[in-house]
Amino acid sequence: MNRVYNFSAGPSMLPLPVLERAASELVCYGESGMSVMEMSHRSPDYEAIIQDAEALLRKIMNIPDNYKVLFLQGGASTQFAAVPMNLIKRTGKADYAVSGQFSGKAFKEAQKLGYDVKCIATTKDDNFDHVPTITRDMIRPDAAYLHICFNNTIYGTKYPYIPDTGDVPLVADLSSCIISEPVDVSKFGVIYAGAQKNMAPAGVTLVIVREDLLEYAEEDMPTMLEWKTMADNDSMYNTPPCYSIYMAKLVYDWIIELGGLEEMKKINEKKANLLYDYLDSQDYYIAPVKKDSRSMMNVTFVTGDADLDKKFASEASAKGLKNLKGHRSVGGMRASIYNAMPYEGVEALVAFMKEFAAANPKK
Amino acid sequence: MNRVYNFSAGPSMLPLPVLERAASELVCYGESGMSVMEMSHRSPDYEAIIQDAEALLRKIMNIPDNYKVLFLQGGASTQFAAVPMNLIKRTGKADYAVSGQFSGKAFKEAQKLGYDVKCIATTKDDNFDHVPTITRDMIRPDAAYLHICFNNTIYGTKYPYIPDTGDVPLVADLSSCIISEPVDVSKFGVIYAGAQKNMAPAGVTLVIVREDLLEYAEEDMPTMLEWKTMADNDSMYNTPPCYSIYMAKLVYDWIIELGGLEEMKKINEKKANLLYDYLDSQDYYIAPVKKDSRSMMNVTFVTGDADLDKKFASEASAKGLKNLKGHRSVGGMRASIYNAMPYEGVEALVAFMKEFAAANPKK
Repeated sequence: MNRVYNFSAGPSMLPLPVLERAASELVCYGESGMSVMEMSHRSPDYEAIIQDAEALLRKIMNIPDNYKVLFLQGGASTQFAAVPMNLIKRTGKADYAVSGQFSGKAFKEAQKLGYDVKCIATTKDDNFDHVPTITRDMIRPDAAYLHICFNNTIYGTKYPYIPDTGDVPLVADLSSCIISEPVDVSKFGVIYAGAQKNMAPAGVTLVIVREDLLEYAEEDMPTMLEWKTMADNDSMYNTPPCYSIYMAKLVYDWIIELGGLEEMKKINEKKANLLYDYLDSQDYYIAPVKKDSRSMMNVTFVTGDADLDKKFASEASAKGLKNLKGHRSVGGMRASIYNAMPYEGVEALVAFMKEFAAANPKK
Repeated sequence: MNRVYNFSAGPSMLPLPVLERAASELVCYGESGMSVMEMSHRSPDYEAIIQDAEALLRKIMNIPDNYKVLFLQGGASTQFAAVPMNLIKRTGKADYAVSGQFSGKAFKEAQKLGYDVKCIATTKDDNFDHVPTITRDMIRPDAAYLHICFNNTIYGTKYPYIPDTGDVPLVADLSSCIISEPVDVSKFGVIYAGAQKNMAPAGVTLVIVREDLLEYAEEDMPTMLEWKTMADNDSMYNTPPCYSIYMAKLVYDWIIELGGLEEMKKINEKKANLLYDYLDSQDYYIAPVKKDSRSMMNVTFVTGDADLDKKFASEASAKGLKNLKGHRSVGGMRASIYNAMPYEGVEALVAFMKEFAAANPKK
């Protein structure tokens, strides 16, 4: 077995001890005589797994009791539709901040569904090289919610603050930064996240929703997209994505063993600092993101020469540093250094960056 | 490792060689240096997996070229909404046959969404102990489609024929009988199925749709529920449930090694016949389903005494024959004997049934 360093933006690395444990009990889980994949979701063995997953996540994220935790399917993209369908009835209109491609998609989806939505802030004219500064006066007081994407995977930006939305519920897509550091859940009305970056294999979507926001679902919306239906059925209105939830549970176990999110944050900061400090110390590579908007999870950089960028990604891959090519819509390079990326992986990347810069002087 | 015989209705048994292969390559897949769970869905390694999965399924099911194969999320329950949202615009109304709980849910979901739908046949008054006889004259000629559930997991019934719907597209939920025997795909407009019975772990939903039916999606429906969007993006509009699709591919490999669906059908018939022949040979257990509607996958029976039924399921479980309790809505017993249930499992069940009948004479 020769494991590579996988800098993919998602699906992405999972902790090796988690993978090894999953492999060891894949055919037969404990005393159950079967794989977790084969368990009825209504069996006591499986109910223990999903209940543990929720309890562990509540502990890790310090989720207040008045929030429901849902394990759903369909990815964050499905939530782009579910958010307005579940919430807009509160007042009839909603506000969006557009800080990158996915927040833009969320906004467009609400428009497609025919809702009265307004983009109150965007950094599109600056190529999304920073996140908007959102102040309370920008938000319509009668908005049903304000939607933001907290960490922008493609551009490598993150909100350095939680916007103060007053009485307007804040709805945030945390797909690419969930459980990477502590976050004050009580400041949000709804948090949602696809699992495939920091939490589990693709196929499970987390929704954390304040209970008082469960009362506004459209009458004529798909039942499977109703948060209240899922909350009332403990995420088991139908068969949940059982194995992905089990994998999430193993990841939560791993985080607790590491010391929780405070410790996770220290590890992630150390990795990100190593890379950003190097970027700031030289002028071969350019880091396009403004310093106060830098993501700890997705680090973007370019050489300024598309051919060199291509050569970089290709040579890095040959050395076991995989998936460093930037998103197809922006080019350049992107190193996604989620929870499961070891510090040694970032060291290896920085060493390669130095080597490549020395070997490929710019004209 | 002491594997049990798991008669769960789903999630349910997976073939042991499939589980063993998955375990062996869980940490590191081939030369990739990573788990399938960690692969970018846009990487060449993963693209090969999803393309193989589709090609193998097309081969196994002999799917005509004018049908698209989609690997989605959300389960059959999500398709209950997706079906009318994608199709009803063809004519503005649709017909449903209700042969059990899930076909009833599909009908109710279309009503909830506000559509003009009609139940043209139901066997509710007979406790769903058989499927309806559907003839062409019962279907409204201007229906956008007729929806049926081909195999009714809870009641243990299956259509012994494919309804002739003339020019009206037939839409069928095949969740609990997909790839258990050959089926003429060309007789259907749309086939859909949750994976967690015969195909893969829960978390992937198969949709097979005739291309000319991709043009009727509602303008204002959730993008993630649009078949055309998914077809245009080869099921990768967003991140698909990668690992479940990989598991499905391993199951398809296993079926091809067995000799394909003709061979699979022989094996399944042999298992079902063993159980039904025993049920027909005695009068301790009652098989409520009419003979011409019997399912080859889900075999229901009762003792006629709820306490004895309970004792049966409990004692069977202690002997490694798991999950024989009938669905909570109907009681009694149900043995789900999907593709992965070995013949020996059914032999063990019949042996136990004889033993239990002898030891527990009825008053």
